[in-house]
Amino acid sequence: MNLSIIGYDPIGAWMKKADTLDELLSYRNSAGITWINVESPDRPALVQSLAEFFRVHPLTVEDILDPGQRPKIEEFDDYLFITLKAVCPSAGLELEQISIVLTMDTVITFQERPGDYFDGIRKRILNNAGRIRRMGADYLAYLLIDAVVDKYFTVLDSLGSGIEEFEDRAIDEKDETLIQDIQKFKQDLLRVRRAVWPLRESLSFLMHLDSPWMGEELEPFLKDLYDHTVQAAETVETYRELMAGVMEVNLSAVSNRMNKVMKVLTIISTIFIPLTFIVGVYGMNFRFMPELEISWAYPAAWGLMTLIALGMLIFFKRRRWM
Amino acid sequence: MNLSIIGYDPIGAWMKKADTLDELLSYRNSAGITWINVESPDRPALVQSLAEFFRVHPLTVEDILDPGQRPKIEEFDDYLFITLKAVCPSAGLELEQISIVLTMDTVITFQERPGDYFDGIRKRILNNAGRIRRMGADYLAYLLIDAVVDKYFTVLDSLGSGIEEFEDRAIDEKDETLIQDIQKFKQDLLRVRRAVWPLRESLSFLMHLDSPWMGEELEPFLKDLYDHTVQAAETVETYRELMAGVMEVNLSAVSNRMNKVMKVLTIISTIFIPLTFIVGVYGMNFRFMPELEISWAYPAAWGLMTLIALGMLIFFKRRRWM
Amino acid sequence: MNLSIIGYDPIGAWMKKADTLDELLSYRNSAGITWINVESPDRPALVQSLAEFFRVHPLTVEDILDPGQRPKIEEFDDYLFITLKAVCPSAGLELEQISIVLTMDTVITFQERPGDYFDGIRKRILNNAGRIRRMGADYLAYLLIDAVVDKYFTVLDSLGSGIEEFEDRAIDEKDETLIQDIQKFKQDLLRVRRAVWPLRESLSFLMHLDSPWMGEELEPFLKDLYDHTVQAAETVETYRELMAGVMEVNLSAVSNRMNKVMKVLTIISTIFIPLTFIVGVYGMNFRFMPELEISWAYPAAWGLMTLIALGMLIFFKRRRWM
Amino acid sequence: MNLSIIGYDPIGAWMKKADTLDELLSYRNSAGITWINVESPDRPALVQSLAEFFRVHPLTVEDILDPGQRPKIEEFDDYLFITLKAVCPSAGLELEQISIVLTMDTVITFQERPGDYFDGIRKRILNNAGRIRRMGADYLAYLLIDAVVDKYFTVLDSLGSGIEEFEDRAIDEKDETLIQDIQKFKQDLLRVRRAVWPLRESLSFLMHLDSPWMGEELEPFLKDLYDHTVQAAETVETYRELMAGVMEVNLSAVSNRMNKVMKVLTIISTIFIPLTFIVGVYGMNFRFMPELEISWAYPAAWGLMTLIALGMLIFFKRRRWM
Amino acid sequence: MNLSIIGYDPIGAWMKKADTLDELLSYRNSAGITWINVESPDRPALVQSLAEFFRVHPLTVEDILDPGQRPKIEEFDDYLFITLKAVCPSAGLELEQISIVLTMDTVITFQERPGDYFDGIRKRILNNAGRIRRMGADYLAYLLIDAVVDKYFTVLDSLGSGIEEFEDRAIDEKDETLIQDIQKFKQDLLRVRRAVWPLRESLSFLMHLDSPWMGEELEPFLKDLYDHTVQAAETVETYRELMAGVMEVNLSAVSNRMNKVMKVLTIISTIFIPLTFIVGVYGMNFRFMPELEISWAYPAAWGLMTLIALGMLIFFKRRRWM
Repeated sequence: MNLSIIGYDPIGAWMKKADTLDELLSYRNSAGITWINVESPDRPALVQSLAEFFRVHPLTVEDILDPGQRPKIEEFDDYLFITLKAVCPSAGLELEQISIVLTMDTVITFQERPGDYFDGIRKRILNNAGRIRRMGADYLAYLLIDAVVDKYFTVLDSLGSGIEEFEDRAIDEKDETLIQDIQKFKQDLLRVRRAVWPLRESLSFLMHLDSPWMGEELEPFLKDLYDHTVQAAETVETYRELMAGVMEVNLSAVSNRMNKVMKVLTIISTIFIPLTFIVGVYGMNFRFMPELEISWAYPAAWGLMTLIALGMLIFFKRRRWM
Repeated sequence: MNLSIIGYDPIGAWMKKADTLDELLSYRNSAGITWINVESPDRPALVQSLAEFFRVHPLTVEDILDPGQRPKIEEFDDYLFITLKAVCPSAGLELEQISIVLTMDTVITFQERPGDYFDGIRKRILNNAGRIRRMGADYLAYLLIDAVVDKYFTVLDSLGSGIEEFEDRAIDEKDETLIQDIQKFKQDLLRVRRAVWPLRESLSFLMHLDSPWMGEELEPFLKDLYDHTVQAAETVETYRELMAGVMEVNLSAVSNRMNKVMKVLTIISTIFIPLTFIVGVYGMNFRFMPELEISWAYPAAWGLMTLIALGMLIFFKRRRWM
Repeated sequence: MNLSIIGYDPIGAWMKKADTLDELLSYRNSAGITWINVESPDRPALVQSLAEFFRVHPLTVEDILDPGQRPKIEEFDDYLFITLKAVCPSAGLELEQISIVLTMDTVITFQERPGDYFDGIRKRILNNAGRIRRMGADYLAYLLIDAVVDKYFTVLDSLGSGIEEFEDRAIDEKDETLIQDIQKFKQDLLRVRRAVWPLRESLSFLMHLDSPWMGEELEPFLKDLYDHTVQAAETVETYRELMAGVMEVNLSAVSNRMNKVMKVLTIISTIFIPLTFIVGVYGMNFRFMPELEISWAYPAAWGLMTLIALGMLIFFKRRRWM
Repeated sequence: MNLSIIGYDPIGAWMKKADTLDELLSYRNSAGITWINVESPDRPALVQSLAEFFRVHPLTVEDILDPGQRPKIEEFDDYLFITLKAVCPSAGLELEQISIVLTMDTVITFQERPGDYFDGIRKRILNNAGRIRRMGADYLAYLLIDAVVDKYFTVLDSLGSGIEEFEDRAIDEKDETLIQDIQKFKQDLLRVRRAVWPLRESLSFLMHLDSPWMGEELEPFLKDLYDHTVQAAETVETYRELMAGVMEVNLSAVSNRMNKVMKVLTIISTIFIPLTFIVGVYGMNFRFMPELEISWAYPAAWGLMTLIALGMLIFFKRRRWM
Repeated sequence: MNLSIIGYDPIGAWMKKADTLDELLSYRNSAGITWINVESPDRPALVQSLAEFFRVHPLTVEDILDPGQRPKIEEFDDYLFITLKAVCPSAGLELEQISIVLTMDTVITFQERPGDYFDGIRKRILNNAGRIRRMGADYLAYLLIDAVVDKYFTVLDSLGSGIEEFEDRAIDEKDETLIQDIQKFKQDLLRVRRAVWPLRESLSFLMHLDSPWMGEELEPFLKDLYDHTVQAAETVETYRELMAGVMEVNLSAVSNRMNKVMKVLTIISTIFIPLTFIVGVYGMNFRFMPELEISWAYPAAWGLMTLIALGMLIFFKRRRWM
């Protein structure tokens, strides 16, 4: 469990790491914005104490400690509570839960695993890059959500670049792991969707809520964020449709192949089966078979067989099997 | 039919079992919260008397006695009526109906079968664990619904852990009961869905209702409960999608297998059918077959046949059938 | 065309049959509730006169006379008009149209065919069973709709009990009429759905309408009725999903069977085709075939063929085809 | 381009045909209702002049002249504009555009092609049949739309009567044009749907609009019209489901047939392949084959072969392939 | 990067090209409407300066510079921001982003690539064609969007004309690229849909917004524009359904073909396999085979074989395989 605290106002910014809650809170400055980050919240007691200090509802604490939460945004009397799912490409698209508690002057974030989602924001605060130091805690919360949403696009882009490869593999009928790989791809998409859809809903809800926690100034930013989630959700759906197309192409390729195999078998069989019958006839040992004694019978048999073979070939040509 | 009654207030709590309605009501205490639990309500007359005592509408009594009810929450003048479906993993995922009548100071529960869904809550009341003794009857009702919803997750987790096994079985084409097992799995999901969906709707309706039966204090708890039902419903849908993927993988595996069988058949047939024809030709008994007299004819025939077989093999290689 | 009239108030009840409209109306009593039932309304003129007497809109008369109406509930100035579809199990699930005109003190029902849907209600009126004699005309209308909705469940139960049989038939690949029977089942479901869905909508509309024709007292009854239609609609959808499962199981069973047939063919062919070639070789009549003269050649040939057959069997075992 | 004008009031009615706009307008009577009908509006200039005379918006003129409009109802300051798609069974279900401009006392209709949709209404006006002469221009507009909607049912009935034939054809596996005919049927349904759905929406919009162009008196008529479009839309969906069923039955029939063909092939092959091997063995020309000399060897060979054939048959019986 | 500026009022109009922002703005005239067009906005700094000049929000600038935006319409304090996707048939249906900033008297457009979408509008302004010079900046914005939407129909028409060709190809089972071409077609449709759907939503949102940026006068034009997007969206869906039909026809054609191939194979095999067995029997070299010595045995064998072949043919005829 890692505790860090950042404080900033338009004039300055500082960052500290702490081992205990008391140490952490001792750094806290009444003026300016405070951002407390808790990585891998595996000590429930400490989380609980922190929550109590900021008057956080017990249900929120439960939600923070349970990694199986569905993304949501909830308004409480003293704070706004946001739960997100971050996708981590390095960890096989595992979903990681990130919880944000936003009060008027403080943002507390809980990350399920140590991660670098927020490094860029930390730098922007400390280096006074962009407008962040001039804005409130709500803008910080917006930036944090935005950083998570941006990762979705990184993941979707890398998934999307794999689709073309699938399209090539679809017409290779020998690719036996294709269907399983497609299923894996779809499961990854499902995972992203499970992260994106509820967030989209929650943002829509937040925008229509006349909440004191998100100032009017933030409206265009939230609208932008919402548009991004809509775009991510639509990209997921488009990818699903494209993969359905890949499946169809593959099914058709497999079936075409089967068809050709069957045709070759049929053509070879149908030509040789009658011929083999004929040579069988003249292999019989009956004592009285007049044909056997005729001197031109053998070449005549060959002629007959050639005729039959040619007839078959013409039949196949006519039916356009060859 | 089992009757039990629990009474509690912030100071104390007691529990009694009763055989008759009169005995039951004699235990009732005007102060504090009363919880009456009726297991296997198979004596309609007794249920009716109990209902009349608490001024419950005849339609509600009908609903309690009919085990085929759809989950719903209905507001009446004197009480709030809640019907739920509990899933019982021990009984092959059979749905069990649980009805709750909530008045200001009394909660009456009807369980279709004796069960242990509420044992934990009983203990928390009697041992004064958590906040329950300090809260109203509405909080007890919330806890009861929450206990039922928690069981859904137990069931879903155990179903979910079976999906990976299905994924392994999908590529084993000899698994002939796979499809039937998948259908059984889907029917279990359908059952959970039939329990979850109407409950989700009802909770959404309850939250938007400005009902006196659920105090303002309960709002975050109801929201939490609602989120859980949404999560359960989404899990069901995700499982359905995963199973659809399992089906696709299996279909593709079966078809691939068939393809291979066909190819082997075709390759063997197509190589040997012309060879068998040739040996047939030289098995004919015509008197005048010049080839038969030539001393190097037999090895030449072998040579011809080897050439044909090689030609075929090259043909298959080129078409990438081997 | 059959005309009957029932009159009742809390004190008494009577029932008469009539042949003409005048006779019918002569029985009408100003006090109490009047219920006029018209079976097989095949004489438009009489229906028109009856309608004019109760100031029914010409469009309503058209709807009553046209058996192809979609279930609906319409409010007019002088009455509430309800059209339903009843399902009649005895008549191959044919849909029968039932129209109800509800004024303050009169209920007029039109049944497309003579039927026994309402016999139970007649008895309850005449025998003063339940609360019916104490309630208004709106309660009678509710009871009539409820009787029709109850029949849906009878039909659905009998359909539902057939599903298990379908599940057994699905794994019997020789059952050639299965698919057609499933289609017939689905068409029956479609029929029930066509009766239930519009009724559900209409009831929802009626409940949100602040109509004078349905008193406040009736609210819980309408809610209950609505819940029943929702339940019927959901049952239809569940059955459809189960039948889709039956189809999948059947498709898979058929395909498995085909697979096995193909495998047997392939195994037999692939073992014997090379052997037949070998015996063919030694059936050739070349004068110079050294093997033929060797005394141990015949057993050696048998040995070779046994080896080939064993090799094939091992190949199949390895590929897990046997 | 055909111009005709009808004028009527409760007392009388007249109809004239005109060649020019001036002639047409000269017939116009200030009192009563005027209905101007324009067939095949292929002279944009004339349509434009007519439109200007009645102060019709340029966008409306564009819509009238462009036959590719989607059905819609639009309210303008001076009139209500309605565009419909009529289906013409005689012209291979081609969609024809009909536009209606409704002012307080005038209805102007534009028909893409000369047609007889409105002949019945003309007769009712001239013969004073029904209530039409006593009603306003809005009732005339309603009748015109109703005439178009009635045609949908004519078309749907004729389509519906073809479904049973499809059901019979589905089990005939030799019917090679079935799928294409089904597609043609579906395209016809698509066409009707494209006519019906937007009209349904527009009518719903019109009913909720508090428009001065459609009087209160017309409300039940509009509701009735709306119900008809809903019914037509539902019929289309039902037909689609039935056709999906036909496809499933056909797929299953084709697959069953294939299955049987394969089985016959397999049974014949599997019985004779081993027998042919055996006769091949005793056709070999080895000098030392002791069996050949035994006097009872030939009948013994027959016996062996009979045993093998019987064994195979029993094997197939057991597997229920025969 | 290309800059051009057009100014107009009811009396006159002029157009200039510029290389720098200062030059561009120097042309700007306070009176009348100004339209600034920026082609290929690849110099962010210049775009930023331009944006600052017109007090455009930084988020809007980001959206303009990022070509991956989803179509949307956003209202800001000082302007209305519109992002569109144009489809360019000449560039393989690539989507091109077009952004429009609309203030009271100025329209700024940003085109991702140089294109001729707006040439017609430029000519109408400079030649004073239609009403454009008499209308405000909002009408210009409408015309610009309309020009983009019109292109969708050009693209859809050219796609639609390809469907018939697909229908012909569907019944040609040798067409191996069909499925891939269908997928390409579907991807094109997806692209158009991704351009149309969000625009439709945004226009619906714009129409219900009481925005100062779009005057009341523009209402029928926006309604018309909205109807066009709805029509484009429906056309996309119709094409998708038609292509699904093409797929079904093709699947059925391929399966029919396979069926026929199998039948020919089966018929030939089943006739000749027993005959070949018989000739094999009389090719055996047993010393004691009485039949071989009979003088009429050879013709009798032919007779037997003819009988068997005829029997088979009758069997196939009966089963309707021929």
